[in-house]
Amino acid sequence: MAVEVVYRSSRDPEQLFMDKAEADRHDKMLELAEALGEVLQTAVPSLTEQTAEDVSLYLAQNRDVFAKAFKNNLGALADLLPAGNPS
Amino acid sequence: MAVEVVYRSSRDPEQLFMDKAEADRHDKMLELAEALGEVLQTAVPSLTEQTAEDVSLYLAQNRDVFAKAFKNNLGALADLLPAGNPS
Repeated sequence: MAVEVVYRSSRDPEQLFMDKAEADRHDKMLELAEALGEVLQTAVPSLTEQTAEDVSLYLAQNRDVFAKAFKNNLGALADLLPAGNPS
Repeated sequence: MAVEVVYRSSRDPEQLFMDKAEADRHDKMLELAEALGEVLQTAVPSLTEQTAEDVSLYLAQNRDVFAKAFKNNLGALADLLPAGNPS
């Protein structure tokens, strides 16, 4: 047995990382998701809090793909659709 | 009276533009919204079709702001929140 260092984001204390950079990426992703959730719930009143959170987490987890799609590279979204459904 | 040229996107025939570039921007925005709607509905089953459309339109209408937010510029989202609520 030995003492070891693990890392976590205070936004999600359950999730532990051995790698500080990974914990940092996770924290940044959650930070983005939180901000998106607030904006989307304000803009789209029919969104429930839970669904706003689900959408925001999904957007934040795939931020690179969505950044490309919003920059005129719509094709990037194909990576997110199940294979065999390339519409 | 005179004949004049107006432009529209086939995705939204009701909306007429005097300026072709503006019609083109509108068409591109709707194209992005459609693609986002498909992706989000697949990824977040609790989204109704109407709400997925509302969220997607909102994201597409503000694509520049969201592109920045996804590229580590979270502060860009502040532009979308009502004044006096700068959280």
